[in-house]
Amino acid sequence: MGEGIAGRVLGAGHAVTVYNRTAAKADTLRGKGATVASSPAKAARDAEVVLTMLADDAAVEQVVFEPDGILGAMGAGAVHVSSSTISVALAQRMAAAHRDRGSRYVSAPVMGRPDVAAAGKLFVIAAGAEDAVQTVQPVFDVIGQRTYHMGTEPSVANLIKLSNNFLLASIIEASAEAFALVRKGGVDPLAYREMLTTSFLNVPIYHTYSDLVAREGDETVGFAAPLGLKDVRLALAAGDTLRVPMPFASTVRDAFITALARGYEHRDWSVLGRIAAENAGLNGK
Amino acid sequence: MGEGIAGRVLGAGHAVTVYNRTAAKADTLRGKGATVASSPAKAARDAEVVLTMLADDAAVEQVVFEPDGILGAMGAGAVHVSSSTISVALAQRMAAAHRDRGSRYVSAPVMGRPDVAAAGKLFVIAAGAEDAVQTVQPVFDVIGQRTYHMGTEPSVANLIKLSNNFLLASIIEASAEAFALVRKGGVDPLAYREMLTTSFLNVPIYHTYSDLVAREGDETVGFAAPLGLKDVRLALAAGDTLRVPMPFASTVRDAFITALARGYEHRDWSVLGRIAAENAGLNGK
Amino acid sequence: MGEGIAGRVLGAGHAVTVYNRTAAKADTLRGKGATVASSPAKAARDAEVVLTMLADDAAVEQVVFEPDGILGAMGAGAVHVSSSTISVALAQRMAAAHRDRGSRYVSAPVMGRPDVAAAGKLFVIAAGAEDAVQTVQPVFDVIGQRTYHMGTEPSVANLIKLSNNFLLASIIEASAEAFALVRKGGVDPLAYREMLTTSFLNVPIYHTYSDLVAREGDETVGFAAPLGLKDVRLALAAGDTLRVPMPFASTVRDAFITALARGYEHRDWSVLGRIAAENAGLNGK
Amino acid sequence: MGEGIAGRVLGAGHAVTVYNRTAAKADTLRGKGATVASSPAKAARDAEVVLTMLADDAAVEQVVFEPDGILGAMGAGAVHVSSSTISVALAQRMAAAHRDRGSRYVSAPVMGRPDVAAAGKLFVIAAGAEDAVQTVQPVFDVIGQRTYHMGTEPSVANLIKLSNNFLLASIIEASAEAFALVRKGGVDPLAYREMLTTSFLNVPIYHTYSDLVAREGDETVGFAAPLGLKDVRLALAAGDTLRVPMPFASTVRDAFITALARGYEHRDWSVLGRIAAENAGLNGK
Repeated sequence: MGEGIAGRVLGAGHAVTVYNRTAAKADTLRGKGATVASSPAKAARDAEVVLTMLADDAAVEQVVFEPDGILGAMGAGAVHVSSSTISVALAQRMAAAHRDRGSRYVSAPVMGRPDVAAAGKLFVIAAGAEDAVQTVQPVFDVIGQRTYHMGTEPSVANLIKLSNNFLLASIIEASAEAFALVRKGGVDPLAYREMLTTSFLNVPIYHTYSDLVAREGDETVGFAAPLGLKDVRLALAAGDTLRVPMPFASTVRDAFITALARGYEHRDWSVLGRIAAENAGLNGK
Repeated sequence: MGEGIAGRVLGAGHAVTVYNRTAAKADTLRGKGATVASSPAKAARDAEVVLTMLADDAAVEQVVFEPDGILGAMGAGAVHVSSSTISVALAQRMAAAHRDRGSRYVSAPVMGRPDVAAAGKLFVIAAGAEDAVQTVQPVFDVIGQRTYHMGTEPSVANLIKLSNNFLLASIIEASAEAFALVRKGGVDPLAYREMLTTSFLNVPIYHTYSDLVAREGDETVGFAAPLGLKDVRLALAAGDTLRVPMPFASTVRDAFITALARGYEHRDWSVLGRIAAENAGLNGK
Repeated sequence: MGEGIAGRVLGAGHAVTVYNRTAAKADTLRGKGATVASSPAKAARDAEVVLTMLADDAAVEQVVFEPDGILGAMGAGAVHVSSSTISVALAQRMAAAHRDRGSRYVSAPVMGRPDVAAAGKLFVIAAGAEDAVQTVQPVFDVIGQRTYHMGTEPSVANLIKLSNNFLLASIIEASAEAFALVRKGGVDPLAYREMLTTSFLNVPIYHTYSDLVAREGDETVGFAAPLGLKDVRLALAAGDTLRVPMPFASTVRDAFITALARGYEHRDWSVLGRIAAENAGLNGK
Repeated sequence: MGEGIAGRVLGAGHAVTVYNRTAAKADTLRGKGATVASSPAKAARDAEVVLTMLADDAAVEQVVFEPDGILGAMGAGAVHVSSSTISVALAQRMAAAHRDRGSRYVSAPVMGRPDVAAAGKLFVIAAGAEDAVQTVQPVFDVIGQRTYHMGTEPSVANLIKLSNNFLLASIIEASAEAFALVRKGGVDPLAYREMLTTSFLNVPIYHTYSDLVAREGDETVGFAAPLGLKDVRLALAAGDTLRVPMPFASTVRDAFITALARGYEHRDWSVLGRIAAENAGLNGK
C-alpha cells in the first residue's frame, strides 16, 4: 500500500525518502528515484511531510515513539500524516505528542486497495488543523480521487475509517448469512449473486464481496481475516470508550474469532462466508 | 402496491378485474377501465392470471383458501401469481393446493416501492413451472424492468425475497450502529452520509437508508417497522426450518422488537437508526 | 413423563384412564390398574379431570381439537389440565375453547425430569380459575413437591415455564462458553466443574449441566436438542408478541440451529457445550 | 476488600504492613496493629509475602512496575500474590518480571464480597509454582474457606476468575430477560423470584441476583456496573487471544455499554435488569 502511495508522490515530482522494515521492499521505489533511509528517524529528518502507512498500532507506536522513530527527528512545523488504520486512542496520543514537540499531525486513513492507491484513486479521509491539512493536500491530490475533510480533531478520521471497515465487514457477514440461507433452500449461489448485483445492490463493493462469498473465494487474500478482526476490535474499543453498543460488530468479531479458531488465519476476510456456510452444515461440516 | 401493478397491466391493454377489501381503494382503477369485483372469488373466476399482492400470510390465506377465496374459483390451467412477501411454508401450501385442483401457481415477489411499481421498474423474482411462468411473463414485462427466473419450485422465490429484505434490514442496522458511533465521536451525520454515498457506497439503496438514518427521518413511512419485523421473523423461520443460524437476523429482530416496545410501531423501518442512537445515549435518552 | 405422573395418581388410589398414541406404552400402567382408552375422546368422557402431557403444540392441538379429541368429550365442569410445554397462544386458545363449552381449563406445566415425576417431586406451576385449580390440587399434591399458584390466567403458567426453560438453556450456553474459554487456556474441565459446583454454583442444576458440558456428555439424552430449540423458539415468540427483546434467547436459538445443522439432532440439549467447543477449534474442528 | 483480607491476616497473628493510595483508608488497620507504609515499595521491602488487591490493570501496573512499586523492592524468594481481577496478559507479564528478578509470583483471585473476606469465607483460586503457593497457603487459610489449586501457570487463575465473573454476569442478563418477559406477561416479579429460588435455582447467587433484578435494586452498589463491564471486556480479550468466540459475553458487554450510555455508571451491575426492562418498554421508557 505504501509503495503505491509513494510511487504516486514520486510521479508527481516530489522528492521522496522511504523506509521499510524489510529493506528489499524499497528497491522498486529506489528505481523510481526515491532515497532509501535506514531508519524511520533518518527518513523523517528534514522532511516537510512524513507519511506513515503501517499494519497496526504496535507498528505505528514503534516507528513513531521509539528512539529511532520519527517523532524525535521531525523539524518544527513538519507534518506527520498517519494513514494506517489504527485505534482512536493512538491517534489522540500522537496528536498530543506532536503538539508537545512543535510538529503537526494529520490523520488521513484511506479507502481502497493497493491497486487503487497505485492508480491515485483512493478516497482520503483527513482530519487535523486546517493549516496542516492544507500543507499535505498536494499529496492527497496525487494519491486520491477525493479528500473528505472531517474536521480539526485528527482522531475523528480514524474513528470514521473504523466505522467504514465495520460497515464493510457487516456487508460480508450479512451476505454470508443470506447466501447460506438461499443455498440451503436450493438456490445456485452464482444466480443469487447475479440477481443481487444487477438489481438493488449494483455497486462495486457488493460485486466484490457477494462474488467472494458466493464462490467461497477466500483463498486469494485481498484483506486478511486477522486484519478484519483487528479493525472490528478497534471499532468495538472505540464504541466502548464512547459508550455505543454495537451488536452487529460483536457478532462479526465472534465470527472472525471462529474463523481463526478453525485455522483460517491466512484467508481473505470474506472467510465469514465460509463460516456461515459451515455453521449451516454446508461444505460437509 | 397492487394499484401500481394493476395500473401497468391495464395500461398495456389487458382486461383487468380487481378486488380490494376496502372497496373505495379500487375507485382509481375503475376509472382507468378495471372491472371491480365484490369478492376474491368473483375476481378470479374466468381469469387466465390471478395476481395477489397482500400484506402478510394471514391476508393471503384468507383471500386464497376461504370459501369466497380464489382457489375454488379459478379454472383449470389458470395461473395464480403471488407477489406478496410471505412465508416459504405458505408458498409451499399454495403450490400444493393448486396442483391438487388443476390450476397453476407461480411465486413472484418483487423488489421496489409503490412508485417503482407504477413506473414499471420493479425487479420480479419468479419461480414456478416453466409453462406457468411463460404464461405470466407478459405481466412481468409491464410491471418490471427485469424478471429473474429462479427455477421451478415456487417457494424458492419467496425465500429469496426474504433473504433480500434481510439484507436491506442489515444495511439499516449496520448504518444505525455506524452513525451512532461517529455521532458520539463528534462527526456531523450528514457529512458522514455524504462521505459514504459518494465513495464506496454510491448506490441508491444506501443513499436512501443512510440518509434516513442520518436525519432520523423515520416519521415518513416508506416501509413500516412492523413489516420489517415480520419479514425478518419469516427469514428466521425459514432459517430455522432449513437449519441456518442467522445471528445478524436475530439482532435485527431484537432491535425491531425494542422499537415496537418503545412505541415506534408507526415509524419507517429505518427506526433502527433511532434505536441505536437511543441505546448510545443520544437524543437525550 | 406421562407415565410417571399417571403412576403417581394411580398410586394415590384414583381411578385413571390413559391414552397413548403408541398403545404399547400404556401396558405398564394397565398393569398398575389403569383403564386404557383407544382414543383421547374415550379417555376424557366422564372424567372429572383430564391431564394432557404431550411433546408440542401440534400434538396438543390434535389431542384436544380433532374430532376424536378431548374437547368434545368432556362433560360440563370437568377440568382439563395441560402440563405440556406449549406456546402461550395455544394455551389461550384452549382456555377460550373450554370457556365456550362449559368445561374448565388449567395450565400446569411442571419442572423436573421423568424420574422426578415418578417420585412425586415435580414443581408444578399452575394457573387458572381458583375453583378449577382447587379441583385439581389433589393431583398436583401426589405428583409434585410444591405447587406454585401463578394467578387465574392459565397461559401465564405457560409463559413462566418457557421463561424457566430459557433460563436453563442460558445456563448451558454460558457454561459452554466458559468451559471452552478455560479449556483453551489449559484448564482441566473436570477441575473447573469441581471448582464451580463446590463454590458459588453449588446447586443440582449446575451439577448436572456443568458436568454434561465438562464431559461433553450429550450422547445420553435427558432432554433432546430439538426440544430445547422448540422451547426457546416459543419463548422468543412470546417475547415477540409481548414486545420483549431477548438477545440471550436469540443466541441460544442460533446455537441450537447450528447443532442441528451439524447433525446433532439426537443429542441432549447440553450439546451447546460441544458447539461452543467446536467453534473454539477444540475437538479437532 | 483489601481491608477485610488484611484484617484476617493480622487476626491470625502475622505482622502486616499496609499501603493504600488514600492514606486514611489504612487507619482502621493501623488500629488493629498494622504498620502503615507510605509507598508500595516501602510496604514490600523485607516482606516474605506481598499481597495486592486493586481495582484494575492500570492500578496494578502502577503499584508493581513504577519506580516506587513493589517489584524493585521485593527480596529474592519473596512471593507476590496478586488477588485483583486483572487481564491474563498482565498476569503473564508479572510472572515473567518476577522470574527475571528472582522473586516469586502467584495469582490468587478470590470469589466473594468484602463482608465475606472479613469473615474469612472467600474462595481462593490459586495458581503458581508449588513452592510459592505453599509459602502463601497460611494466608489463604485465614482469608478463605477453601483454596482451589489450578496449576503452576499463574495466569490460569486469572482466566478462571474472568470466566467465573462472566458466568455471574450471564446469570444477571438471563434473569434480566426472563423477568422482563414474565413482567410484560402480567406476572408479579417477586412471585417469580420466589418460584425460582425455592425450586431449581435455590442457591445464594440466584437469591441475590434474581432479587436485585426483580426489585430493580441496583441503587445499592455491591459491584459497580463499570467493573462488570471491565471484567467482561477482559474475558472477551482472553477469548480473542485464545480464539474462543463468546456470543453471550458480547451481548453482556453491549448491555453494560448501554447502561453506561444511559447514565447508570453508579449502579450495581444488576442494572442489566433495568436495561432489559427498559428495552421491553417497561418503566415508562
